[in-house]
Amino acid sequence: MTGPVTVAALDVGGTSIKASILDAHGAVLHRESVVTGVRDGRDAVTENVLALARRLVDGFGCAAAGIALPGVVDEAAGTAVRSAALDWRDVPVRRWAEDELDVPVAIGHGVRAGALAEARLGAGRGCPSFLFVSVGTGIAGASVLDGRAEQGDGGGAGGIGHLVVRPGGPECACGGRGCLEGVASASAVARRYRAAGGAAPGGQVSAQEVQWRARAGDALAEAVWRDAVAALADGLAAAATVLDPHCVIVGGGLSRAGAALFAPLRRAFAHRLAFRSAPRLVEAGLGDRAGSLGAGLLALELLGHSLEALALEPATAAVVGGLG
Amino acid sequence: MTGPVTVAALDVGGTSIKASILDAHGAVLHRESVVTGVRDGRDAVTENVLALARRLVDGFGCAAAGIALPGVVDEAAGTAVRSAALDWRDVPVRRWAEDELDVPVAIGHGVRAGALAEARLGAGRGCPSFLFVSVGTGIAGASVLDGRAEQGDGGGAGGIGHLVVRPGGPECACGGRGCLEGVASASAVARRYRAAGGAAPGGQVSAQEVQWRARAGDALAEAVWRDAVAALADGLAAAATVLDPHCVIVGGGLSRAGAALFAPLRRAFAHRLAFRSAPRLVEAGLGDRAGSLGAGLLALELLGHSLEALALEPATAAVVGGLG
Repeated sequence: MTGPVTVAALDVGGTSIKASILDAHGAVLHRESVVTGVRDGRDAVTENVLALARRLVDGFGCAAAGIALPGVVDEAAGTAVRSAALDWRDVPVRRWAEDELDVPVAIGHGVRAGALAEARLGAGRGCPSFLFVSVGTGIAGASVLDGRAEQGDGGGAGGIGHLVVRPGGPECACGGRGCLEGVASASAVARRYRAAGGAAPGGQVSAQEVQWRARAGDALAEAVWRDAVAALADGLAAAATVLDPHCVIVGGGLSRAGAALFAPLRRAFAHRLAFRSAPRLVEAGLGDRAGSLGAGLLALELLGHSLEALALEPATAAVVGGLG
Repeated sequence: MTGPVTVAALDVGGTSIKASILDAHGAVLHRESVVTGVRDGRDAVTENVLALARRLVDGFGCAAAGIALPGVVDEAAGTAVRSAALDWRDVPVRRWAEDELDVPVAIGHGVRAGALAEARLGAGRGCPSFLFVSVGTGIAGASVLDGRAEQGDGGGAGGIGHLVVRPGGPECACGGRGCLEGVASASAVARRYRAAGGAAPGGQVSAQEVQWRARAGDALAEAVWRDAVAALADGLAAAATVLDPHCVIVGGGLSRAGAALFAPLRRAFAHRLAFRSAPRLVEAGLGDRAGSLGAGLLALELLGHSLEALALEPATAAVVGGLG
């Protein structure tokens, strides 16, 4: 292990594992994605994660690794307490990974790791506090104060996916009705459009396709998209009312809609918070790389590197942001 | 100034100023209330606050004073930025009070000071994090982490009065519709009952009276009370979803309804958070004295007394709790 320090960073999602190699300045030297392999069962997922981590650590001579996970994560214990997406329950990820890799391993939660990366390298730089919300297949959030994603009592601080925004609305997997995730996530947008007859029976359609059709004048697509944006504004306004953050950062797949999302979202958000000055609402800076960058930052920290110093290197941040 | 250290503590509300004298252990040596005098204008309010503070500081030889204020408070600058209840705007309370009293003065926000007192001396002892909500004329909240009430970006962290719980519902003074405060505060309960024809034209009725009538079988009172409890459960569940606190502490005038409030509220709260384990929901321990006790703690801290030590003295806390 000669040469400059590097760390391996993995962000494990329900569909893919996004991996990066970072140097000590937070710059990305390499990145790749592999399928998570959820269909092959939970053991296959574990094997895929460990095999990828070993290949990266060996190949790049990494001094540490960071792994970001979905669901309920005990970061201190290094375990995946419960992850519906991976069908994992009480998996001692850190212990298994350290046995496999022979380097120290940091375990983080996907959206909190993403929030940490946005704080240090992305849209949250210079922002004393923010709510980071990732709108994709699901809707997850994290509350960041002084560059740190808060934990909450059960790891749920900043979670807004199950805020009830449409009382009596669509059923949610959580057992409730009208949850934000059931109305405004990318999968909800696609599902609601299909359910309303917007696609041929059995036909697949993505949230992005719905948004394109809305722009092209498809009235049904417009109604579904408009309602999703309104619900998202409601949820963000409720969370901002309670957390009082300096700004709100929205990322995840749906945020790639750009102005089609942010223009109406900003209007509705400011309107709902008219009783006070609404926090600035901005697009995430690191795209779908935020989680793996955050996992890398956790690994750097494990090696004793200060993230505060990192945040002061805008040139490095720009490089990483460009890759994000 | 011989003898043990004492501090004067004032909690300025729209109706009364509640004052206490605390010793260095947080025990209450004296307490009193005077009318705020809002009807006589903002200058009269200022005079009343300063006169009471001087009488207490002089009479008890206090080494410092703490003043808790409603509205938007800049605690660091020691100013009342904006208080509708007192008709105050940009009042340099600390400077005026220190000029008047010749002792150091700490300025706090009413509900955050109350939350601090609950954390050290009340229902929040031993609780790593909690949401404190005061339901009275209005609804205010504070989020406490490690014994400290969080500020948020604009002093609004934990504020749940303007969470929208009834989209399209009653108009709120904030300009929105369906805010929690407009449905579930003590004044909203009384107002909605009157508006629905529950009291003789021009007749006065308090929230407590509405709750008594509900218990006695008045169907209209029952409906108003039930809806207020349901809305409160909705608001607390939304805030708990976002903040993920260890417990939720409810105080203020309405909490004096006891089991008539807490039994249905706990059921509804747990039901709404069925997708995760709901935090414990408990009644505040210090009653309407929380704000002034908190102001006293801020004053003690100003003198260099550690509040951590205070929290370790259950005997003292019990005495104070009994007085609360």
